[in-house]
Amino acid sequence: MTCFTGLSAFPITPASPDGRVDPVALRALIAPLAAAGVDSIGLLGSTGTYAYLSRTERRRALDAALEEAGGRVPVIVGIGALRTDEAVALAQDARAAGAAAGLLAAISYTPLTDEEVFEHFSAIATGSGLPICIYDNPGTTHFRFTPSLVGRLAQVPGIRALKSPAPDSDAVAGQLDALRRAVPAEFRLGFSGDWNAAEAVLAGGEAWYSVAAGLFPEPCLAILRAARAGEAARARALNARMQPLWDLFKEFSSLRVTYAAAHNLGLCRTDPPRPILPLSEPIRNRVAEVVDRLALA
Amino acid sequence: MTCFTGLSAFPITPASPDGRVDPVALRALIAPLAAAGVDSIGLLGSTGTYAYLSRTERRRALDAALEEAGGRVPVIVGIGALRTDEAVALAQDARAAGAAAGLLAAISYTPLTDEEVFEHFSAIATGSGLPICIYDNPGTTHFRFTPSLVGRLAQVPGIRALKSPAPDSDAVAGQLDALRRAVPAEFRLGFSGDWNAAEAVLAGGEAWYSVAAGLFPEPCLAILRAARAGEAARARALNARMQPLWDLFKEFSSLRVTYAAAHNLGLCRTDPPRPILPLSEPIRNRVAEVVDRLALA
Repeated sequence: MTCFTGLSAFPITPASPDGRVDPVALRALIAPLAAAGVDSIGLLGSTGTYAYLSRTERRRALDAALEEAGGRVPVIVGIGALRTDEAVALAQDARAAGAAAGLLAAISYTPLTDEEVFEHFSAIATGSGLPICIYDNPGTTHFRFTPSLVGRLAQVPGIRALKSPAPDSDAVAGQLDALRRAVPAEFRLGFSGDWNAAEAVLAGGEAWYSVAAGLFPEPCLAILRAARAGEAARARALNARMQPLWDLFKEFSSLRVTYAAAHNLGLCRTDPPRPILPLSEPIRNRVAEVVDRLALA
Repeated sequence: MTCFTGLSAFPITPASPDGRVDPVALRALIAPLAAAGVDSIGLLGSTGTYAYLSRTERRRALDAALEEAGGRVPVIVGIGALRTDEAVALAQDARAAGAAAGLLAAISYTPLTDEEVFEHFSAIATGSGLPICIYDNPGTTHFRFTPSLVGRLAQVPGIRALKSPAPDSDAVAGQLDALRRAVPAEFRLGFSGDWNAAEAVLAGGEAWYSVAAGLFPEPCLAILRAARAGEAARARALNARMQPLWDLFKEFSSLRVTYAAAHNLGLCRTDPPRPILPLSEPIRNRVAEVVDRLALA
């Protein structure tokens, strides 16, 4: 068991409108995740709005998370930045603070070549000594990692795992096979995209990096444990029960839905960073209805 | 004539590897643009790597550009940022420094809805009082402005112009027509994408926002002036002569080619910000050969 297997729960990061992290509110979100027994905390992921927070505020969030969960649950922290030197500094911060690993996306403005991403990741792994999980998130970065590039990166000391969006169930076995052939045996392959994650774990995915688990860890843990125990029918039944939430995630983005749910439940009064807007009241009501009907809270 | 018509020249922004702008090198790039008689300087555009520079360094670049060109040529400056509050601050900086206008892209990490982009742009225009040109650049932002959204934004006081990528020549008249029907008569429609810009100006585009002109203003001015005078055959012939440069832009990106050309010519010794890598030596040699053959320098 490493921090790159099992269920990784990705909470939102409560912050003021001007981007100052609220460590008390963040700890209140993290405490139940640690208590539920998730395998890791995925701090400052995309849903944790890392891209919108300064280095100072990211360090503030990390310190709070480590104080709350550090002794019990490993913390994987988003270290992505547009500039290589900034990402190196964030990775150094993360290692100094005591994070278990860094989650590194290929954020871009000017579209990047494979060689540029390879050099970017190598510089960050080498410059920090922090264990790194490649964060493949083309929906936000518009860069797509090929198995060949993942294989090259897996040769770089410190680059240990991949988090990629789970494809539809008919494609996941092929994708896992192509990736597995490209990387060493000890390299860990995990998936995001909550709506397809159960099938990805059933197909052999070693981790589920979950937005839903950042607010509702128990039902996600139940799905993951059934899938890892090979109880496919049970995993699928538990997952099917979550479909109304997955449908909201797909329609409005998991980030916006999670903020609305946290708001509805009184867990967090902050909105996402502008320009991202809170969902409208009718949609927030739909989110509340689903959370209530599934007895998630 | 406003700053949103004619030829706008977009230079690169010389900076150190850790992101500190070199004002002397920047002024040396801007002086010949002003002397050539371009209609505006497009400072800190995508090629000017605004997305990779801090607020302090962007202000340093703007002050240098205004000192060099301010009295002679209006300076339009990139004010885009991921956060709304940061973009407001950059727009306020630009207005206080004396920029003629701000160029505002819909930078995103979490993909944005039309409503989010509308609110983002409105907040920046209202919060700064700076005249704003909408910067439609889906190649870097992955957000696409519809004519309908441009029309809504054109109603916001201060939002005055659009810079969008010139489509292929068979599509430009239709695109211009759709946009023109969506905006007030005084709203200015201009184009980027050097390889398609001549046809876009011939079709009625009011400005050419040009990367090539940031280094080679004369041949671009000749094309623009012929096109605006209705001398279509002459404009097309002058443009056809530039095709080897356009081909390099399309293959390697205008940003990377411009850095290589500036390097080859001894105009600027700095590389693009990492993770963007300088072009390899064989490709730099191809760039040098084209610059030499076209007698651009």
